[in-house]
Amino acid sequence: MRNILIIGAGRSASSLIKYLLNKAIAEDLHLTIADLSLELAKKKTNNHPNATPILLDISNVENRQKEIQKADIVISMLPAHLHIEIAEDCLTFNKHMVTASYISPKMQELDSQAKEKGLIFMNEIGLDPGIDHMSAMKIIDEIREKGGKMIQFESFCGGLVAPESDTNLWNYKFSWNPRNVVLAGQGGVSKFIQEGKYKYIPYNKLFRRTEFLEVEGYGRFEGYANRDSLKYRSIYGLDNILTMYRGTLRRVGYSKAWDMLVQLGMTDDGYPMENSENMSYRDFTNSFLAYHPTDSVELKLRHYLKIDQDDVIWDKFVELDLFDGDKKAGIKNATPAQYLEHILAEKWALQPEDKDMIVMYHKFGFELDGKKKQIDSTMVCLGDDQTYTAMAKTVGLPVAIATLQILNGNITTPGVQLPIKKEVYEPILKELESFGVIFTDKEVPYMGYNPNNVGS
Amino acid sequence: MRNILIIGAGRSASSLIKYLLNKAIAEDLHLTIADLSLELAKKKTNNHPNATPILLDISNVENRQKEIQKADIVISMLPAHLHIEIAEDCLTFNKHMVTASYISPKMQELDSQAKEKGLIFMNEIGLDPGIDHMSAMKIIDEIREKGGKMIQFESFCGGLVAPESDTNLWNYKFSWNPRNVVLAGQGGVSKFIQEGKYKYIPYNKLFRRTEFLEVEGYGRFEGYANRDSLKYRSIYGLDNILTMYRGTLRRVGYSKAWDMLVQLGMTDDGYPMENSENMSYRDFTNSFLAYHPTDSVELKLRHYLKIDQDDVIWDKFVELDLFDGDKKAGIKNATPAQYLEHILAEKWALQPEDKDMIVMYHKFGFELDGKKKQIDSTMVCLGDDQTYTAMAKTVGLPVAIATLQILNGNITTPGVQLPIKKEVYEPILKELESFGVIFTDKEVPYMGYNPNNVGS
Repeated sequence: MRNILIIGAGRSASSLIKYLLNKAIAEDLHLTIADLSLELAKKKTNNHPNATPILLDISNVENRQKEIQKADIVISMLPAHLHIEIAEDCLTFNKHMVTASYISPKMQELDSQAKEKGLIFMNEIGLDPGIDHMSAMKIIDEIREKGGKMIQFESFCGGLVAPESDTNLWNYKFSWNPRNVVLAGQGGVSKFIQEGKYKYIPYNKLFRRTEFLEVEGYGRFEGYANRDSLKYRSIYGLDNILTMYRGTLRRVGYSKAWDMLVQLGMTDDGYPMENSENMSYRDFTNSFLAYHPTDSVELKLRHYLKIDQDDVIWDKFVELDLFDGDKKAGIKNATPAQYLEHILAEKWALQPEDKDMIVMYHKFGFELDGKKKQIDSTMVCLGDDQTYTAMAKTVGLPVAIATLQILNGNITTPGVQLPIKKEVYEPILKELESFGVIFTDKEVPYMGYNPNNVGS
Repeated sequence: MRNILIIGAGRSASSLIKYLLNKAIAEDLHLTIADLSLELAKKKTNNHPNATPILLDISNVENRQKEIQKADIVISMLPAHLHIEIAEDCLTFNKHMVTASYISPKMQELDSQAKEKGLIFMNEIGLDPGIDHMSAMKIIDEIREKGGKMIQFESFCGGLVAPESDTNLWNYKFSWNPRNVVLAGQGGVSKFIQEGKYKYIPYNKLFRRTEFLEVEGYGRFEGYANRDSLKYRSIYGLDNILTMYRGTLRRVGYSKAWDMLVQLGMTDDGYPMENSENMSYRDFTNSFLAYHPTDSVELKLRHYLKIDQDDVIWDKFVELDLFDGDKKAGIKNATPAQYLEHILAEKWALQPEDKDMIVMYHKFGFELDGKKKQIDSTMVCLGDDQTYTAMAKTVGLPVAIATLQILNGNITTPGVQLPIKKEVYEPILKELESFGVIFTDKEVPYMGYNPNNVGS
């Protein structure tokens, strides 16, 4: 029997565990499901004979190493900064490892040691990063195999709410960490390249520089730029590409309204607000507006942000109760971002009957036989329920499939890596299709940004 | 003979050195003027018999300590972060010390040791901080002595260009470190209190929340909020004050135009721009605008920032040559802020015949005998020339006067301190008047922000 140790049994591990439990008998697997909450681990094992739930505090080195020694492969679904100690143990005890997180510099440092020992440390094999890498590399490799030359790559992904559960004016609900949504785009400029020209968008303009995308059957979305669109330029082999842009998807109208919260200063996580525990939502809003003895918070905000009296954007703020003088977050020393997160967590929570939705959109521009061409590739995945969300499926299933592929010797390249090799993405993308993660590729007229090479 | 060691003979030390040299014979002073540039030190001694110019690299501990040992008092005009080693030597060798810089936490830590040894470490005794403290505390103490209760304190200061030398559309020239002007307002929210309500302005709105001030004979100015207006609330004894606001002055119209550079992202110091050494001013501007094969940089910028075709603000950008395709900064790995600083340093340099101007404006609101009253206090100081600038005078003279007062035993309170005590500010403000640093106080109707206590 092959032993798989899964550390972290939270939300994003649901589909991952379910997949492996379903394969456990046929594939001769035993799962140890470890979490800080034994109850949660128990719930996820679902009394399966091939699974053992355990309580594990990874800061307890002895216990951690004992469990890792027993495993053939370790999956870490912990927050990214906690992977490194586990990775070091995996090196010590010669275990493969799989994570859905970005490769940290510290993880990268283990590459040569992992290679020497023939260990596979597969990372970035969730949704984004993960499915984005695999689905992009599949098309890029196909274009290259035909002799094509990549000239444009744009890639967008969004974790959204399914149309049937889309019941608020922002057309958004939280299917992952709300804090990350509040802080999205902060901490540095957004940088990308368009037609060979580097472009930079500061945070205060990020949500005003969106572009629209249409997905058949699902309507219109908007994308805003990710921090570093160029991170994977070399990794994908696109060093000389003219246009490379990575973005995050929202429903149309979200970004313009969100920008107003940014402009007010409500997303700032850098300082505690005075007396935040006694502050009403209205006080919170008012603290970003100039003092006036009689003017209303409403009118001050409309004037400050130049919102016409008949602008429907207004209703988005009213829906959040931003002018409510009774409701309080009740958080001590809250930063604006923490206070806002509290407001949104209530309003944008996925309800028990709600379903979420993942949307991914790639645009590949290339030259083939002297002609400029474009392929658009889209994927929409809907959640089944609150446990097997689209987020849990798209993050967890690639991790689970990769784990089994490694155990079965189908993925063989050792070292710290991400899923950009055919041996990795081909079987995984194929199997994902049976779970409803299906990309639709379509050849479209090349649009680019400068199809006729006009000088600028 | 009393020995004064002056470390740092740069721009802001000119008036300071001149003052002490003028007093040297009568007051029996000997000045050692130390700088990394012996030539500069020599120039500043001006062959005065009571002055010795020396070359001093303060990182050479032996030389530094040798010179400090010879002195009775040490003036450090170095950048703020370099004071601490000198202060520690002053402790070791029992010397008084004077700086024009903010008290750093490390400097503050020396307080009890300085007190034990009876040493005076006087800081923040330049212009701002310095003259602002002294002139504010003078009025605040007077109000209190009459039995008044402070309810409002606002204080503004600006280093500007004299009207006769005011020749550009921004009505601004550099009389101090250009880098600090480019980075002004960054690094955190601006926080203040108005009528008991805490208010927060994010950087992206800072230059759109100005207020106007009129100075008789000099016209209108605008003020934007400093980072932490509340820093001196306790120090001034204003813990229960309803309104406290500190701001920076510019000529009207500067902030609205500057905000557009902020909105574009040109003031960001957080990342190097690609290929910055070969980038023209026009390329620089274009890198913050969306790509388009044919639309001009000019039209893209007008549209992005919503600048009408007949808006005079436009001329400010043209004046900076932001659309010049030939001019290059030629700086490798320049951040946007560094590139912008290069552009501005050329355009906003004080010319040999130019004079600068310092403007300070305090508003004191108080209750006395059941009535709300207000005193406005203003000071305008003009530079004599490029050496004895208003900045050099207002920064250096209080340092020089304080030094002599300490030597003569008129300032006696030991410890790490700033000039808020009567024994300090009274003689210094009085003597500053003979150098043209004169405050005009005027009782005006109390305006406050809520004179009639209307509920909000």
